[in-house]
Amino acid sequence: MLTFYFAPHSCALASHIALDCADATYEAVRLDFSKQEQRSPEYLKINPKGRVPALKTDRGILTETPAILQYIAQTHPQARLAPLDDAFLLAKVNEFNAYLCATVHVAHAHNRRGARWADDEQANAAMRAKVPRNMGDCFELIEREMLKGPWVLGEQFSICDAYLFTIAGWLKGDGVDIARFPKVADHFARMNADARVRAVLAQHTA
Amino acid sequence: MLTFYFAPHSCALASHIALDCADATYEAVRLDFSKQEQRSPEYLKINPKGRVPALKTDRGILTETPAILQYIAQTHPQARLAPLDDAFLLAKVNEFNAYLCATVHVAHAHNRRGARWADDEQANAAMRAKVPRNMGDCFELIEREMLKGPWVLGEQFSICDAYLFTIAGWLKGDGVDIARFPKVADHFARMNADARVRAVLAQHTA
Repeated sequence: MLTFYFAPHSCALASHIALDCADATYEAVRLDFSKQEQRSPEYLKINPKGRVPALKTDRGILTETPAILQYIAQTHPQARLAPLDDAFLLAKVNEFNAYLCATVHVAHAHNRRGARWADDEQANAAMRAKVPRNMGDCFELIEREMLKGPWVLGEQFSICDAYLFTIAGWLKGDGVDIARFPKVADHFARMNADARVRAVLAQHTA
Repeated sequence: MLTFYFAPHSCALASHIALDCADATYEAVRLDFSKQEQRSPEYLKINPKGRVPALKTDRGILTETPAILQYIAQTHPQARLAPLDDAFLLAKVNEFNAYLCATVHVAHAHNRRGARWADDEQANAAMRAKVPRNMGDCFELIEREMLKGPWVLGEQFSICDAYLFTIAGWLKGDGVDIARFPKVADHFARMNADARVRAVLAQHTA
């Protein structure tokens, strides 16, 4: 039995969608960041980083979106959420997910989480000011170089699609018009209309 | 045949060590960042992100350290650089590598690469000022929660060790004394004394 820890409006949405697409059996536990529940002594025992997502398994806890996504795909092979038998294509999946995790999510985090990297307010304002340009640059690269269409890998839906949908959903709040990126916008609209995705989203917005 | 693109003092060192530990057949191509070679039209065709590492394979190009590391392990299974047959342990490998990539490397990058996230010099100074604390916090967590010893995963050397060694090597320049973290310091000293690691390092410092 899996227990999945998430918070609304966080990158945990990607793993949540993947769990559902995998038909995984899991219990979802929602944390309230406004009450700092991710910093509670109980949760820090689950994830000492004080972040989401975290996935509790019979073997122990897993954190970090790219790791959780590949784990879901590998433990639910019937769902075909990653090219598990092809080391090169699996590396392309992980390349895409690492870019979202370490570059795009980080670019976004400088909007509201700048205090991670600088204490003074003027510096935080300077970081916020650059977010639209950085997020725009990232999505130009995704549009031009990475998103094959209709899904990230081409014809095969994968964990990359859940992750891209999650982060593309942050563009509006970051001051970037998704319409600048026609393939990304089409991808977002198809994901957003999917009944399974909507059921997960309902848990993130209720 | 593999072609590996790297630059001295970059995170490409991790993949470079992994290639050597895997007894991979590859050609190494060194870029000179001081001449902005990573921004040359020729290199941007290889990696449109203008970063290293990049690994050219017969199937295409791979980028992003965590993706390249798992690819090297999967395509050279005899080197036993990752627990390839255990989805949970492989996820722990990727969890560790994702933390280094998206949190620790990013914390470090605010020292000399702050211009990625804010344009004005005062903001960059404020970011630099926080780097020692953030890198210290990251390595406290690595010391306490992640590095089992003697290697990251315990008794089994893995791709995680090449990556940890690479980033631990940045601590001094970030104003953090590695001696604060006895297990990390011991790990670093053992890696640094290894003949194979030294041979790779020589290519990064010559």
